Amino acid sequence: MVKKIALLGSTGSIGRQTLDVVRALPGKFSIVGLSAGKNMDLLAQQINEFHPALVSYDSHQPMPDNARYDFLSLEALASHPAVDTVVIGIPGKAGLGPTLAAVRAGKTICLANKESLVMAGEIVTREARQSGAHILPVDSEHSALWQCLRGESKKVARLILTASGGPFRHFTPAQLKKITVEQALRHPSWHMGKKITIDSATMMNKGLEVTEAHWLFDVPFERIEILIHAECIVHSMVEFIDGAMKAQLGQPDMRLPIQYALSYPERLANPTLPRLDWTQIRDLTFEPPDFETFPCLRLAIDAGKKGGTYPAVLCAADEVAVELFLARRIKFTDIARYVEQALAQHKAINKPTLDDIMAADAWARDITLKLAGGVE
Amino acid sequence: MVKKIALLGSTGSIGRQTLDVVRALPGKFSIVGLSAGKNMDLLAQQINEFHPALVSYDSHQPMPDNARYDFLSLEALASHPAVDTVVIGIPGKAGLGPTLAAVRAGKTICLANKESLVMAGEIVTREARQSGAHILPVDSEHSALWQCLRGESKKVARLILTASGGPFRHFTPAQLKKITVEQALRHPSWHMGKKITIDSATMMNKGLEVTEAHWLFDVPFERIEILIHAECIVHSMVEFIDGAMKAQLGQPDMRLPIQYALSYPERLANPTLPRLDWTQIRDLTFEPPDFETFPCLRLAIDAGKKGGTYPAVLCAADEVAVELFLARRIKFTDIARYVEQALAQHKAINKPTLDDIMAADAWARDITLKLAGGVE
Repeated sequence: MVKKIALLGSTGSIGRQTLDVVRALPGKFSIVGLSAGKNMDLLAQQINEFHPALVSYDSHQPMPDNARYDFLSLEALASHPAVDTVVIGIPGKAGLGPTLAAVRAGKTICLANKESLVMAGEIVTREARQSGAHILPVDSEHSALWQCLRGESKKVARLILTASGGPFRHFTPAQLKKITVEQALRHPSWHMGKKITIDSATMMNKGLEVTEAHWLFDVPFERIEILIHAECIVHSMVEFIDGAMKAQLGQPDMRLPIQYALSYPERLANPTLPRLDWTQIRDLTFEPPDFETFPCLRLAIDAGKKGGTYPAVLCAADEVAVELFLARRIKFTDIARYVEQALAQHKAINKPTLDDIMAADAWARDITLKLAGGVE
Repeated sequence: MVKKIALLGSTGSIGRQTLDVVRALPGKFSIVGLSAGKNMDLLAQQINEFHPALVSYDSHQPMPDNARYDFLSLEALASHPAVDTVVIGIPGKAGLGPTLAAVRAGKTICLANKESLVMAGEIVTREARQSGAHILPVDSEHSALWQCLRGESKKVARLILTASGGPFRHFTPAQLKKITVEQALRHPSWHMGKKITIDSATMMNKGLEVTEAHWLFDVPFERIEILIHAECIVHSMVEFIDGAMKAQLGQPDMRLPIQYALSYPERLANPTLPRLDWTQIRDLTFEPPDFETFPCLRLAIDAGKKGGTYPAVLCAADEVAVELFLARRIKFTDIARYVEQALAQHKAINKPTLDDIMAADAWARDITLKLAGGVE
């Protein structure tokens, strides 16, 4: 059974690594659809290599020479009848629409976009139950939890999300204020896209992952913990009600969780994937997270617990703030500050519809820009 | 469904801890049978507390006052129709007979005795396939592997058995020669019976576990590795063909794997069992095993690989040598020496019958006593 894949965000970090996995496992997967919003040259190369039947690209970008394709929205690609597996490799809010489209069409969704579950977890998971869609995590931590839960009844005492702690672990408040874009983009262990790399540096990413885990595994927030593990070898752990824990370990390489989601329930031998070499690992270290140094962690978990439209505001404010930081318009520590202010000013709606979520998103983007404008 | 348990070796370390688990989970298990070869006072107490229908005890021992039971062999107890689950908590060769009896009767066997699989793994596993008996590991390492394999197809790249390294890790040859019985019985992490504690100190135990894992999980010896992990938190690991690893972690407490085997496939909440406290764990360390310092490791793995009657000779020679060491008649380093000499002198039989194995066992006991006699 060749799986027919639509890859959304094919020129990004997840997209390129997904294609690496597909290349390494010939005959297992067929790339039926590709989409990219940037880097049309790379998209053109990918089209030449994989000959997808369907391509979705930003119509404002110059069309790749070889792309004689009809216009196709991301939603149409994600729900296309020729597709059975949709990889959502688009970061940020832009992933929500196509994720929902794939969910409603009952697809198998390899989800690397966490915002769709953070912003609209209740809606996405409810619709997935109704349509029979399977949402398979691609995030390394959630893939680890999912692997640990494999074959187990859901008698979970705790989920423990591990975190590298990012490049600024043990920084003082004075040091945090001076962090440059270049420093923040230099993650010690993982190679990822820019947005998620900054979110890792603020630890917003880990906070979002808590909410993501809550929705993916239906575990209450009180039973989800964070543990700093700088070596990024233990990707996360599950404690069961009898006190036994299971952990999933591996090199920090996104191709591992990408392949696991693509090949699930099979595991496939792939000689291009790295293996742990225990002659090289002498020490695995663990420490509790520092909520003082990384206020985004607390903001994200609080927003997730409160629910309603708070998580959408959190995501939107963070997305805008990270862009402003990358554009060198605000300081690293301003990211948490503006997100906190946006959340404080928000009048939340409980049990929101998708429209409510989108309105909260728009409001939060606006207010964050205004907050930032005020300091220029 | 209350599980009807026969507990063989009820006054030993595994036996007492099994009864702790049964006490902590009222209504889940019924102790239908008990057996003990020593400590008749404790057996009498256990009979008073659990009121088993069946009791097997050494007829040479004074009968407990309260034990108005007909004579029952271990084999008859292990295969009794009133029993569905048999816990084999008897160490050494004495566990083989009742294990085989339980296997032939198609029971669920919670196996804490490794010698039965090491000596006669081919026969025991073949008979279990024929009778439909389930052999569930109780050893913490094998329980860990079994938990990691849960829900996975058997696409295993490697099994990694962790080892504390025992109390004599990093000892020099001169230090090893001077080890006293008291030192050897002081295991840094686990509380276990005497035989297994000495086997842990020589690392014979870990070598036996390799063969045990080979038979339990049908994985070739080349894919079974040993990793020293002094903290005894990671109980073992499995690497799958895609490079993902899973580990099972927990406090070093035998009640965890005992309960897992008893309650399988369920996991049961048990407030008396310890949990890992990650605020107290800062560091997990790993290092390769030292085959020079611990020759028993190599001897056991080599015997397992060669198969035939070699593992029976290994076990018998070790059992005698450990007894002689505990009786202060030989040195700690003599254990490996006599085992090696017994193996070297053995004329092995391939594809042995049970009689061949028993004959090899008797021969090896004899020769080891003679070897030891020669140095007195």
